[in-house]
Amino acid sequence: MTNLTLALDAMGGDHGPQMIVPAAVQALEHSPLLKIILVGDERVLSPILRQHQAQLHPRLIVKHAAQVVAMDERPLSALRNKKASSMRIALDLVEQGKADGCVSAGNTGALMTMAKVLLKTLPGIDRPALITGMPSINQTPTYMLDLGANISCDSELLFQFAVMGAAIAETVDNIKSPRIALLNVGVEDMKGNDQVQQAAQLLKDTKQLNYIGFIEGDRIYSGDVDVIVCDGFVGNIALKSSEGVARLMADKIRASLNRSLITRYFARVFSSKLNSGLNQMNPDHYNGASLIGLRSIVVKSHGNADQAAFTQAINLAIMEVERSLPQKVTERLEQILLDKSN
Amino acid sequence: MTNLTLALDAMGGDHGPQMIVPAAVQALEHSPLLKIILVGDERVLSPILRQHQAQLHPRLIVKHAAQVVAMDERPLSALRNKKASSMRIALDLVEQGKADGCVSAGNTGALMTMAKVLLKTLPGIDRPALITGMPSINQTPTYMLDLGANISCDSELLFQFAVMGAAIAETVDNIKSPRIALLNVGVEDMKGNDQVQQAAQLLKDTKQLNYIGFIEGDRIYSGDVDVIVCDGFVGNIALKSSEGVARLMADKIRASLNRSLITRYFARVFSSKLNSGLNQMNPDHYNGASLIGLRSIVVKSHGNADQAAFTQAINLAIMEVERSLPQKVTERLEQILLDKSN
Repeated sequence: MTNLTLALDAMGGDHGPQMIVPAAVQALEHSPLLKIILVGDERVLSPILRQHQAQLHPRLIVKHAAQVVAMDERPLSALRNKKASSMRIALDLVEQGKADGCVSAGNTGALMTMAKVLLKTLPGIDRPALITGMPSINQTPTYMLDLGANISCDSELLFQFAVMGAAIAETVDNIKSPRIALLNVGVEDMKGNDQVQQAAQLLKDTKQLNYIGFIEGDRIYSGDVDVIVCDGFVGNIALKSSEGVARLMADKIRASLNRSLITRYFARVFSSKLNSGLNQMNPDHYNGASLIGLRSIVVKSHGNADQAAFTQAINLAIMEVERSLPQKVTERLEQILLDKSN
Repeated sequence: MTNLTLALDAMGGDHGPQMIVPAAVQALEHSPLLKIILVGDERVLSPILRQHQAQLHPRLIVKHAAQVVAMDERPLSALRNKKASSMRIALDLVEQGKADGCVSAGNTGALMTMAKVLLKTLPGIDRPALITGMPSINQTPTYMLDLGANISCDSELLFQFAVMGAAIAETVDNIKSPRIALLNVGVEDMKGNDQVQQAAQLLKDTKQLNYIGFIEGDRIYSGDVDVIVCDGFVGNIALKSSEGVARLMADKIRASLNRSLITRYFARVFSSKLNSGLNQMNPDHYNGASLIGLRSIVVKSHGNADQAAFTQAINLAIMEVERSLPQKVTERLEQILLDKSN
């Protein structure tokens, strides 16, 4: 690991600094070359830092922010009126080169709008997208985007998402020629809405991309595709409904084992094995979606992330800094868009 | 149970008559007052009926159909060119009053288009919708619609879905004043696209409906809502991605238990308990979505349903006939739409 600095929006998310401060301390312990700038209200942060004996940590700096972006604030209102917010100042630090990346568990729409204006999109990209690696039957994650940054998307935007998703799969997981699919209500050629139909045509026409066709929702986790492209409304619903099922199933299995003394005893004795099965699908272990298509690194944590989950999001940002993700995506973009125009 | 007749599209779905014939025989054994008209190619059906010793079953009639609607056929093409198909003739039997309802595992779009033209929608309803009861943490199902019959929906259509969903929850599960929610990418008032925003306003303005606001995908299974409304694209993706997770989790848990001899032994000995936990979320046990908003009963089975799953879809159709579902939905619709116009 090289020396690197992350700016954390310490006030964002459902649990705020009570969860983010210990997550930051944990990340610093784990990564000796990491420096963290905690952005938030000093009066709120100070006692929490003392509580975690971190007020004098040599690699932890507090940067005061007088405002907070509310979870239900409209993005444009946050952009105009919250210039002193923890989210804004964390992004400013990235823009000024004082931090290599930023992590926030705050309002997704506001983060996306501010990041787009402050950090700018890559050449050839109109809007950033939220991407994450979904668990699958294989060891390799399946990248899905957009997960909620863009509520409606035309075919050109879906095409750009496909290019970015492929670049991520190539850069992060060294996948040669990643298999790209469009999420749709059926696999047959005539299925879906106009946007999906036109995006399919754009992808078919681009020889540099390994487009394999439509997939339905039940194949998101099948491991037979590397990049899944959809608009932010659909992606958000697919991700969150999957989380809902995973939680419900874990509850049901635990409840069914708790019904008899013998199975309850077993479940307790072998809880680590059972939990390993259950937790492989636990959304808390897959926290952190990257806002890609920007010139810098921004990671969005789940709003209700706990400390372990927020630490995952920090680790994701570290990985992206180490691999110079925006540069890699740019190179791949240039290559595809240049080849396409020839 | 009263005497009733169902028309089955014997040629639809991935497994066709090899799966549908034994499912029909099983349903007849279980329901002594049920009569089934199997619609399909006689030359294909005869040997399968003999194989299951059902060629002389007194309550099983074969109705010949020379054509089949392909799974990838365009709905309008099927409507125009497949008048002798098993799907079309099964619907004709319902339209002519020779069957009380119809079950098909075939092409969803074609089924929806043919059913709309042949059977007509209820007064006040522009388009039918696919609805099913999703499992939840409670014993009561949560109804979700549309699951794929209407790829894009304006706010008026979403409103009609809400009214129909409420009528189903009241009629089937005797829920007084069912809680209705719109599926969205956030719970805050300003979240979502125009259709969802405008549908929220229509629902807020209708005092006869218990509209509780937006919900996100992770609350589909939480049991704190009775009716979830969304367009068919989103509903289909939510349903299928949930199925994908449920299957993957079951696989992962079985695999993690299989890793040691002791847990493997346990898993085998207590497989019934484990399976009860795993199967509560198994989509095969929740097969059958109703095409509601029509003047008659049409149930759509999963295309890849197995025998047990197709029998579930038949049982769903039986329940709907017994409860006179279209009449009940009509009464409720008239009441709400009349009150609203006053």
